[in-house]
Amino acid sequence: MRPVHIGAAQLGPIQKAETREEVVARMIALFDQAAEKGCDLVVFPELALTTFFPRWYMTDQAEVDTWFETEMPNAAVQPLFDRAREANIAISFGFAELTPDGHHFNTSILTDRTGEIVGKYRKVHLPGHDEFDPERAFQHLEKRYFEPGDLGFQVWNALGGVVGMCICNDRRWPETYRVMGLKGVELVLLGYNTPSVNSQRSDEGPADRLFHHRLVLQAGAYQNATFVVAVAKAGVEDGHPLIGGSVIVDPNGHVIAESQTEDDELITAVCDLDDTVFGKSTIFDFARHRRIEHYGVITTQTGVVRD
Amino acid sequence: MRPVHIGAAQLGPIQKAETREEVVARMIALFDQAAEKGCDLVVFPELALTTFFPRWYMTDQAEVDTWFETEMPNAAVQPLFDRAREANIAISFGFAELTPDGHHFNTSILTDRTGEIVGKYRKVHLPGHDEFDPERAFQHLEKRYFEPGDLGFQVWNALGGVVGMCICNDRRWPETYRVMGLKGVELVLLGYNTPSVNSQRSDEGPADRLFHHRLVLQAGAYQNATFVVAVAKAGVEDGHPLIGGSVIVDPNGHVIAESQTEDDELITAVCDLDDTVFGKSTIFDFARHRRIEHYGVITTQTGVVRD
Repeated sequence: MRPVHIGAAQLGPIQKAETREEVVARMIALFDQAAEKGCDLVVFPELALTTFFPRWYMTDQAEVDTWFETEMPNAAVQPLFDRAREANIAISFGFAELTPDGHHFNTSILTDRTGEIVGKYRKVHLPGHDEFDPERAFQHLEKRYFEPGDLGFQVWNALGGVVGMCICNDRRWPETYRVMGLKGVELVLLGYNTPSVNSQRSDEGPADRLFHHRLVLQAGAYQNATFVVAVAKAGVEDGHPLIGGSVIVDPNGHVIAESQTEDDELITAVCDLDDTVFGKSTIFDFARHRRIEHYGVITTQTGVVRD
Repeated sequence: MRPVHIGAAQLGPIQKAETREEVVARMIALFDQAAEKGCDLVVFPELALTTFFPRWYMTDQAEVDTWFETEMPNAAVQPLFDRAREANIAISFGFAELTPDGHHFNTSILTDRTGEIVGKYRKVHLPGHDEFDPERAFQHLEKRYFEPGDLGFQVWNALGGVVGMCICNDRRWPETYRVMGLKGVELVLLGYNTPSVNSQRSDEGPADRLFHHRLVLQAGAYQNATFVVAVAKAGVEDGHPLIGGSVIVDPNGHVIAESQTEDDELITAVCDLDDTVFGKSTIFDFARHRRIEHYGVITTQTGVVRD
């Protein structure tokens, strides 16, 4: 038995006018619920500190940069780090990262129980577009404001197991889970901000969006025999709805905890990382079953090439 | 609009004593139903001509070879080919292939509307084991009787679209769909023989088996914006139960037709291959979104390597 008691701390909407300090106070309130329940790890969503700003088209880079963090932790989030260290609980959350040399990433971090940052991930699969798109019902400008992550899909020895991270749209790509799976991942953490309607297809609404969301998480978990924890920022931000549906998925692909609201909400599950062993040693024993001699185009070719 | 009217012709159990001629008569009966409904293509399961013989442990290669076909078509299946040509309908089915130079494959074929074989696939991901395993509730000796396929995951221009094939356990591997997806696949055909209970975990029964089955098909369809047609051999063969659950899945990942029995049963759907365009040109526009610089281990590494 290698139980890890996990809290998935969904955040409700964060309006444009809300300050980081106000948001961190909400995060600490969820954290305290998780500490009360005995969690070992609390996972918060993608871009947890602000509204989902890539929906806004901006041309002034100085304005864009106001949504980014230049240090982590910084003064606004220090109270959360302090509270986590006091409680001896690991945390993970996402934020917009501006590096000292001027690079912009959609980033998440993992701390150990002492509040030290032990893992950093930068979002690889940026969705959306980079110029204003009048055809869309709303903008999704991640390709404008962020560079693709440069750290790949790493895993870390943490909490008695092998932990990986990815962010939002990464979860739709089987390559994301497989790269971590090939490193033995047992627990994948991810946050997301997912609009409730497809910006390019108005008839694809919340039911379909939640269906796709669960589908890819459950498949990724099953096909790599890993737990997956997916945490939403949900609800209506400045008039733009985001799905909820935060879930904890077991290595069999089953949802074992799921949020019920689109507000600040904690869900928890005790995940025994030894539950990953059966799948990894039988049907998904990669060493016995994978046939890399037939997979070549996956890494040699980015787009579709017809024979 | 590029509609293809597809019939998925599930077969109920084939007992060990049943002859190929008897089975082909059942296949023709299903084919005739499909012709009546106006199908363009009829898809039959994996190893459609015999019982699922890899459940039997055999040491005499001459006995093993009695389950294999040395020609395709051969006398036993010629009536099905004749009927298909007369009706101007394409067919696909699986069989055990013994090549002139002595190689054994788990194979499927696709014909055009004139009964010419235009595509051949040999199963890449062989499940199970190669020696008698006393720990298992029953044997699953595909690794004993077959070699891994040597043709990779090809696609063919057929029926006005891009068609690919895989077989049974291949469907659990995201690499299967992705290799075909990178070749522009719009319709994936597959058959399966899936025991209703995990031979190594007795508490994983039909509900879980069907859940995993649908999960991987639906994810593969959605993540590559392709139709997937999955056809069972179902029911109790010589005391060994196989799941049913034949389905046709659309490029959004939704099941649009599903079998209700574990017997011979035809399900049909009109699949407009143009429904693949939206996904392939937006969220799964591979050329815009894939990041192969971070996928390396998928093709350089077969098994798990811990950092």
